[in-house]
Amino acid sequence: MSNVNIKKAFEDLKKERRNGAYSIGMAHALENIYNISINELSKAFKVQLISCVPGKSYFSFSLDNKISRPINSSLYDPSLVDWQSLITILNTDQLHSFSLGDLEKILYTSAISFCAAVDLLSTGDQKTPGTFFEYYIAFFFSWRLNINPQSSIQIQSLDNEQSSLPTDHIFNLGRGKRKFHMPVKTSSRERAIMLWAHQKLIDGVYGNGRFMGTPVLMQETKLDRKNKQVVEICLPGQWQLYQLYIAKLTRIYYLDPPQAYLKLSQNFPPLYVKSFAEFFFEWDTITPL
Amino acid sequence: MSNVNIKKAFEDLKKERRNGAYSIGMAHALENIYNISINELSKAFKVQLISCVPGKSYFSFSLDNKISRPINSSLYDPSLVDWQSLITILNTDQLHSFSLGDLEKILYTSAISFCAAVDLLSTGDQKTPGTFFEYYIAFFFSWRLNINPQSSIQIQSLDNEQSSLPTDHIFNLGRGKRKFHMPVKTSSRERAIMLWAHQKLIDGVYGNGRFMGTPVLMQETKLDRKNKQVVEICLPGQWQLYQLYIAKLTRIYYLDPPQAYLKLSQNFPPLYVKSFAEFFFEWDTITPL
Repeated sequence: MSNVNIKKAFEDLKKERRNGAYSIGMAHALENIYNISINELSKAFKVQLISCVPGKSYFSFSLDNKISRPINSSLYDPSLVDWQSLITILNTDQLHSFSLGDLEKILYTSAISFCAAVDLLSTGDQKTPGTFFEYYIAFFFSWRLNINPQSSIQIQSLDNEQSSLPTDHIFNLGRGKRKFHMPVKTSSRERAIMLWAHQKLIDGVYGNGRFMGTPVLMQETKLDRKNKQVVEICLPGQWQLYQLYIAKLTRIYYLDPPQAYLKLSQNFPPLYVKSFAEFFFEWDTITPL
Repeated sequence: MSNVNIKKAFEDLKKERRNGAYSIGMAHALENIYNISINELSKAFKVQLISCVPGKSYFSFSLDNKISRPINSSLYDPSLVDWQSLITILNTDQLHSFSLGDLEKILYTSAISFCAAVDLLSTGDQKTPGTFFEYYIAFFFSWRLNINPQSSIQIQSLDNEQSSLPTDHIFNLGRGKRKFHMPVKTSSRERAIMLWAHQKLIDGVYGNGRFMGTPVLMQETKLDRKNKQVVEICLPGQWQLYQLYIAKLTRIYYLDPPQAYLKLSQNFPPLYVKSFAEFFFEWDTITPL
């Protein structure tokens, strides 16, 4: 496993990011990371995992006594050609030439390859995959919408209090147009309530629903390294209470949506958890506006 | 450093905790942990740190290339005799025989000794100090009030939704009496917003202000291991926005209150950050009720 290649590719990505979320340079840097990651992963072994998630099967990459995060077998399909096709037509009307299933595979595979490669390099580095995933999701959404995200919002200052607040990605399409508040995390775990709390804050500053809350997460898998068992850690009952008592999130997108959350659209108050690929087709029709 | 003694003492504490938050057994188990911790720490070196916090000086314990979290020199004063005196009169009217300063030292020293000892045993174990600190604070408040905390609240169920929600410590003194919502964390870091979000949830279920939000934290220090510099990580501007837009916390208590937060009582909306020792004297007069 070449530590150097992976690290160098990530440094290049960080450098490009300073010039914006969706430049040509970013597209190249992400393609380079994808390429190097699948190349490095090809040197590792695949370990079949015991899936406790109905209808899903998982494997991990393993090398030198290290084991990667679980990877959903039916979503993992490495292909640089598919990646390049998607990038070419992402911000055009031809996106419908991709099926939802194809889009899900490309997005999942290119995101998780780098994370799995980092898992095999260093023990317990959660920061690098987290930063990568933020850049990755912001790139796709920015490229599709042709707009850069902001990372802070202005607060009406009365008494010289703090007048701007650092936030997760904010996409503002302009006067009278859609506005998105899009936190990005590899998983929510015990911190999910923060998604609703930040939405509540933005609702407070700009009014309820002015910004659509559309967080994006990768997956909610947990691997028992000893037994090689995979579970999805989900708290649907608590999420419903957050949606009821804290704020309204418009969507929660996943690259690998957990089963237990998909049913929440049937309950009150409804919470729509979907595949991130759907966002590319529905972003401009989610609300009537 | 005797790994075995410390671990055994913590296992004993966990065992006692199952019988309630403030039994005589808990008092003995906590005293035992304190005793073993200061004994083990006496085998380590004291390293003077460079304090970037005006008016505070810090040191760390160090052994075998490991270094403990920063310890506030003016609050650290190990004494088993002081501990025993406090336990004896904690739930009596004689608590005023302790000065606020003495109380602060006893509470700080007995809490941080175990945490520092764990820092020297294992690299990066945050869970053990976190669990210990939860038990520790719950013990003191329970002993003082003569009541056990709950760890969940009932939710009014309409459609067979989840009818109870796991929470941090909830102290309910009974019908028409004071009720406290008391999350306990060793530090808040980038997760502080969760304190307000949980308060918002409880306000939603039971009405605004029915439960007083009184989180307890240890300190907000950050140690640069290379330069041996200590800073306090504080975001007073953001806390003010949480207090304004998410929920109202009645107090935030610290064992070592950060300078930057003490001024927040002067702003709008006021946020009262205080020393945890003050809670023992003000808990039954905080609000008019």
